[in-house]
Amino acid sequence: MVMLGKDLLGIHDLTPDQISLVLDTALSMKEVSAREIKKVPTLRGKTVINLFYEPSTRTRTSFELAGKRLSADVINISAGSSSVVKGETLEDTGRNLQAMNPDLIVLRHASAGAPQLLAKMLPSSIINAGDGAHEHPTQALLDAFTIRERKQTLQGLTVVIAGDITHSRVARSNIDLLLKMGATVRVCGPRTMVPLYIEKMGVTFVPRLEEAIEGADVIMMLRIQMERQRGSLFPSIREYSRFFGLNREKLKHARDDVLIMHPGPVNRGVEISPELLDSPYTIILDQVTNGVAIRMALMYLLIGK
Amino acid sequence: MVMLGKDLLGIHDLTPDQISLVLDTALSMKEVSAREIKKVPTLRGKTVINLFYEPSTRTRTSFELAGKRLSADVINISAGSSSVVKGETLEDTGRNLQAMNPDLIVLRHASAGAPQLLAKMLPSSIINAGDGAHEHPTQALLDAFTIRERKQTLQGLTVVIAGDITHSRVARSNIDLLLKMGATVRVCGPRTMVPLYIEKMGVTFVPRLEEAIEGADVIMMLRIQMERQRGSLFPSIREYSRFFGLNREKLKHARDDVLIMHPGPVNRGVEISPELLDSPYTIILDQVTNGVAIRMALMYLLIGK
Amino acid sequence: MVMLGKDLLGIHDLTPDQISLVLDTALSMKEVSAREIKKVPTLRGKTVINLFYEPSTRTRTSFELAGKRLSADVINISAGSSSVVKGETLEDTGRNLQAMNPDLIVLRHASAGAPQLLAKMLPSSIINAGDGAHEHPTQALLDAFTIRERKQTLQGLTVVIAGDITHSRVARSNIDLLLKMGATVRVCGPRTMVPLYIEKMGVTFVPRLEEAIEGADVIMMLRIQMERQRGSLFPSIREYSRFFGLNREKLKHARDDVLIMHPGPVNRGVEISPELLDSPYTIILDQVTNGVAIRMALMYLLIGK
Repeated sequence: MVMLGKDLLGIHDLTPDQISLVLDTALSMKEVSAREIKKVPTLRGKTVINLFYEPSTRTRTSFELAGKRLSADVINISAGSSSVVKGETLEDTGRNLQAMNPDLIVLRHASAGAPQLLAKMLPSSIINAGDGAHEHPTQALLDAFTIRERKQTLQGLTVVIAGDITHSRVARSNIDLLLKMGATVRVCGPRTMVPLYIEKMGVTFVPRLEEAIEGADVIMMLRIQMERQRGSLFPSIREYSRFFGLNREKLKHARDDVLIMHPGPVNRGVEISPELLDSPYTIILDQVTNGVAIRMALMYLLIGK
Repeated sequence: MVMLGKDLLGIHDLTPDQISLVLDTALSMKEVSAREIKKVPTLRGKTVINLFYEPSTRTRTSFELAGKRLSADVINISAGSSSVVKGETLEDTGRNLQAMNPDLIVLRHASAGAPQLLAKMLPSSIINAGDGAHEHPTQALLDAFTIRERKQTLQGLTVVIAGDITHSRVARSNIDLLLKMGATVRVCGPRTMVPLYIEKMGVTFVPRLEEAIEGADVIMMLRIQMERQRGSLFPSIREYSRFFGLNREKLKHARDDVLIMHPGPVNRGVEISPELLDSPYTIILDQVTNGVAIRMALMYLLIGK
Repeated sequence: MVMLGKDLLGIHDLTPDQISLVLDTALSMKEVSAREIKKVPTLRGKTVINLFYEPSTRTRTSFELAGKRLSADVINISAGSSSVVKGETLEDTGRNLQAMNPDLIVLRHASAGAPQLLAKMLPSSIINAGDGAHEHPTQALLDAFTIRERKQTLQGLTVVIAGDITHSRVARSNIDLLLKMGATVRVCGPRTMVPLYIEKMGVTFVPRLEEAIEGADVIMMLRIQMERQRGSLFPSIREYSRFFGLNREKLKHARDDVLIMHPGPVNRGVEISPELLDSPYTIILDQVTNGVAIRMALMYLLIGK
């Protein structure tokens, strides 16, 4: 019987069967959020701690809702605002939280490997909600769920991931998952934002967006960190947008039934033009909806049985 | 049968019958908060999001308690502290939250009209918890409930609203509600803080507080934003207090059974003298108690059936 | 029959019988947190407000978990981040919160006596979660519980408390409790950090740590406020650590079954050497676990019947 382990640390650790298990479980979880009464007693008496060292209202809210709809007790700890936790090592914070008997700790952290560290030390389950530029497995799983919902399968699809590939945990987790599930992946972005030898990961690098999306089934646009990168890896936002932003003109090169995705929040008019954002091609809000379902599924699979 | 619509955006949209419906419903909700076990299962499995773009511990706490006492799942989002939401338009934040299937979004926002915008876009119910200098309908409803509790009716009462009328959403919502329910309204304040042609709203402007409160049944003192207005619209806090602050001396002009109200938090000794604050005339804490009841009533009427 | 009063303000107010009642009750509460389903309906429909004027993720989380595992509705108010509450007196904030019918307010405040003030004014129960340099009774109770768990009794034990005795509410509450329960207490620390005439409290002052811990059953190390005291009460952190930090060398003077405790968070290598921190002598994580149990016990005893 296929099962998950104690933790969900990255796509790297999952087999295709485990990925399918999560996606299938999320299907029935999605149904719960669509009900009149959006609550099941599955995790009654379980404790979930959201430990966020980087602020992310969106992801935290998604996990909080997932926990509450499963009837868990959810505790939010925003480590940025917490002076006490700040002076402490992650190990010590982890040990102290563990002493309060949580069943699950959801960790977002700026350092790659932080969730692995906690998972090794602590008996409670850990979900990686994003660690540095390393992995963001729940994002990749919700993306896969969203694609499968529209295309029935991931097998045989061509998916383009465009933007700052080097610094994106979303890209890394998605590439890993898509390849495992039999999709073809092309990456696109300024040369300064794509790792050398990226082909060794099993993907193709196509420098021009128009060319990259030729015949693509899915285009995933990555978020530009406006506040961080201005004037460093590319000359200007305007230039980035002109070459690597998606608009109706460039989209002509893709298939008629192409899907446009984005992990959010979108910089309107930078990664995707406003007209495309509001078009039926774009399924960003499906991704958000499915995010709650995927997180419910993971909570159920890790601590619900 | 009288019902509310999808949203509660302002007193402007309510008929007298709808206002009475809210006040009557709040009566049974108040009883819940007075019980040994302050909880009913009415909103079990419903999701309420408190989306506050302006900080207000008091109002947020009141809504949070209201939701929890009705067994809803309540999520707090403080947009000030959230860096991600900050760079996003309200529309995009709204659409993203909607994708997580909330039943109700309680919105406080610095811009007039923000709740209307969300309400038009989103299928979930919206409660306006204060939008700029526009409306604060739950405050007006709790004020009306509190007056009715003491005076049985609003019909025929004389109510004075004193302070910065121009910039007060509390004043605007209260004026609208009181006139709809058959009360007479006088406003009072420094000329610089009262809109020209205020009489067109159906109220009387009386510049001197002593005169304004002559024969009044209720006096509502508005909060002075100490941090904002010092030295701008009036010479000094001391001067404001001397002319427009309420004290025992000035109160002699009012009826013996006059009620003193304030939306809180009070600047002690500025709007109301300390001795009056602690006198039986002042029913500010009743307002706070009734705030929870009114918010429970609105949640029940909007998403509880 | 032994009972608690309305509030838990300090160890000062408790009789030995009341202390035993809390410790005995915590025993069954600890069992709840160890269950598969960590939740009992005891406080269903009760409202607990965590009102924290000083940030403390750890203590707040402990109280929040305690409340939720007893099925109470828990509201967090962090007064530091709340601009509205800031301009208000504690009395006014207290009265306003009371108007929302909470059953219990947990207060942490920088001023000694703040919980006493609230308790006198308000009908709801108050738990002191630390007031200035005055008392931190829940810490002393969880420490006593942890010692009793290992040593069966407090009666006749020798307990050393080392560090900044003068400014420590943890020291004060612990000294009071330990003496009431029949333990012998020695204090140790730089002369600048120990009150003159400390002997009048019934304890012995021993200036050298090696000497203080001679034959001790328990050593409680206090936290050094690194950010506050650098270069004031002692020359340097390094010097402090050398004379008053605990390490394997100094520990040779204690009994073989000595227990090392710390209220957390520990400054690794300052108060306690890393090797001792990770040794079986050190039972800091037991303290954290027992903190939830003690807070559950207090909530149950104050508002659960």
